[in-house]
Amino acid sequence: MIKIAIDAMGGDFGPEPIVDGLVAALRSNTNFTAIAVGKKDELLNLIPSNFLSRVEILDTHDVISMTDSATDALKRKDSTIYKAIELVKNKEADAVVSAGHSGASMSLATLRIGRIKGISRPAIATLMPTSENQNTLVLDVGANVDCDAKNLYEFAVMGQVYAQDVLKRDEPIVGLLSNGEEKSKGNEVTKEAYKLMRNIPNFAGNVEGSDIFKGNVDVVVCDGFIGNILLKTAEGVADTIGAIIKKNLKRSLISIAGAVLMRKVFKNLKVRVDYAEYGGAPLLGVKAPVIIAHGKSNAKAVKNAIFQAITAASSNLNYNIEDRINKYNQ
Amino acid sequence: MIKIAIDAMGGDFGPEPIVDGLVAALRSNTNFTAIAVGKKDELLNLIPSNFLSRVEILDTHDVISMTDSATDALKRKDSTIYKAIELVKNKEADAVVSAGHSGASMSLATLRIGRIKGISRPAIATLMPTSENQNTLVLDVGANVDCDAKNLYEFAVMGQVYAQDVLKRDEPIVGLLSNGEEKSKGNEVTKEAYKLMRNIPNFAGNVEGSDIFKGNVDVVVCDGFIGNILLKTAEGVADTIGAIIKKNLKRSLISIAGAVLMRKVFKNLKVRVDYAEYGGAPLLGVKAPVIIAHGKSNAKAVKNAIFQAITAASSNLNYNIEDRINKYNQ
Repeated sequence: MIKIAIDAMGGDFGPEPIVDGLVAALRSNTNFTAIAVGKKDELLNLIPSNFLSRVEILDTHDVISMTDSATDALKRKDSTIYKAIELVKNKEADAVVSAGHSGASMSLATLRIGRIKGISRPAIATLMPTSENQNTLVLDVGANVDCDAKNLYEFAVMGQVYAQDVLKRDEPIVGLLSNGEEKSKGNEVTKEAYKLMRNIPNFAGNVEGSDIFKGNVDVVVCDGFIGNILLKTAEGVADTIGAIIKKNLKRSLISIAGAVLMRKVFKNLKVRVDYAEYGGAPLLGVKAPVIIAHGKSNAKAVKNAIFQAITAASSNLNYNIEDRINKYNQ
Repeated sequence: MIKIAIDAMGGDFGPEPIVDGLVAALRSNTNFTAIAVGKKDELLNLIPSNFLSRVEILDTHDVISMTDSATDALKRKDSTIYKAIELVKNKEADAVVSAGHSGASMSLATLRIGRIKGISRPAIATLMPTSENQNTLVLDVGANVDCDAKNLYEFAVMGQVYAQDVLKRDEPIVGLLSNGEEKSKGNEVTKEAYKLMRNIPNFAGNVEGSDIFKGNVDVVVCDGFIGNILLKTAEGVADTIGAIIKKNLKRSLISIAGAVLMRKVFKNLKVRVDYAEYGGAPLLGVKAPVIIAHGKSNAKAVKNAIFQAITAASSNLNYNIEDRINKYNQ
């Protein structure tokens, strides 16, 4: 049975949404157990007693806060993130979920669990919504601000394996984010990466920012600096459109009637653009599944992050990443 | 009186939307004249005779198509873009508007009109909508894929002067696009650019992708590779949300009633996210105002591009860019 380690304290809103998410996950999936790392007294109060048989609590009091430096994380061996990751390193758990300090989670995962052979740098992947039913996996969205061509190439391989093994896509298509579709487009790094990626099956070549939302490729590769900017740009546009609609609704009386009728539409829309739907972002390239959830995760996001961790831990993801990267490199 | 040169043939849809836009501009602003560069016979058919006193036609038959290479542009001295730009170079016109091959327009403008003293590379600036009434100027959105810190610094100065002189903003605030607001964030190039930008008044430091749409800064600076990606990402998100809303409207009968009532709201929304509203994108850093309009520009976009050209030509934009950059460099 899969065992998930979870940093129960690190999120922006304390242990409540984390534990609520864990309990929701335990309720709808009976095939896993968990180790919750955090203050035992607080956690015991939040977990209904009938679930306690499936949750171990590792009593831990030090919590790395969002304002702490990521570089301190290695020294704070009694922190919840450190201990949660150590559980995976020591094979006491199969995967880890953290809604805590994402920089700390990444550093600790990379340094303590270690990188997959053949991968120079782990990357954070995230799902973006499309107007079709299928989402697009984008990586890296923040782990590496400066990337070389080889890094981008490795991201492409990892993303493709993740799309296949975890998202269950057949022969996933991977594209390289660029400033135009033509082969001649790109900056120095992406032009070099393009050459390396030609040996990847189903490489679609260069894709544009708008392709992410069309669903015509499964995986889009970029460096973590650009990935962060595009993620926040997408959120910004969605928020702005929402705000403009809201403002106009208030302004016009007749629109209020329309608003009531439109509620259903927007509820559906919200599901599509709501990042909580996807849960967390996997850190690809480390030797065990690590899911980085947003600090502001609600219970639903935590539940979905745990499901992601379970799916990844049940797959051959990391074995296949190593196998694939070494096969291509031969 | 301001005289605007316009490539009347280069757009994706031929001369019709260009001339319609020109005529609309002539109709609502009587303080300028134009030189339309293109096939005289075709253009004469499209221009109502009462406007012919304010439009000179420079009979030109070679048109650089969107599939031609930008590097050929310099050789094709009888093309509409070449001649339109030459009119400005020779001071026969005050500014130029082109909806033709944007790479060709940029190269020709840079090489034939020349760069402003102190500017290493011209940049394309564009306006992005916000939920407030104020738009955000973003540059570079495509002229330079690989930029160094000095380029970004110069973009910041140019953007700030444009915001002041053309957009008429008081003491415009400029931000550097990065992967987080903290000073420590950024990639190698932006960290270096941050240091250079500290001597610019009203430098807001690092800003994130979402800040573009909040309206809390007037100008956002990035390299042209990222600028292109963020522009297309923003368009992609807006289109996706539109498509999801549309799809859901069709699905639900009750929503049709809502849709009718919501029409007013969306019309208002469209104005906000409709790039035709802004017209074209100014190429900043060359010695005369050059407005690059989208190849797919409709008449309204062309009209607004012409208005931008008039405003820029009536301002001290280029004098102030040179003055400011040289003052800061001392």
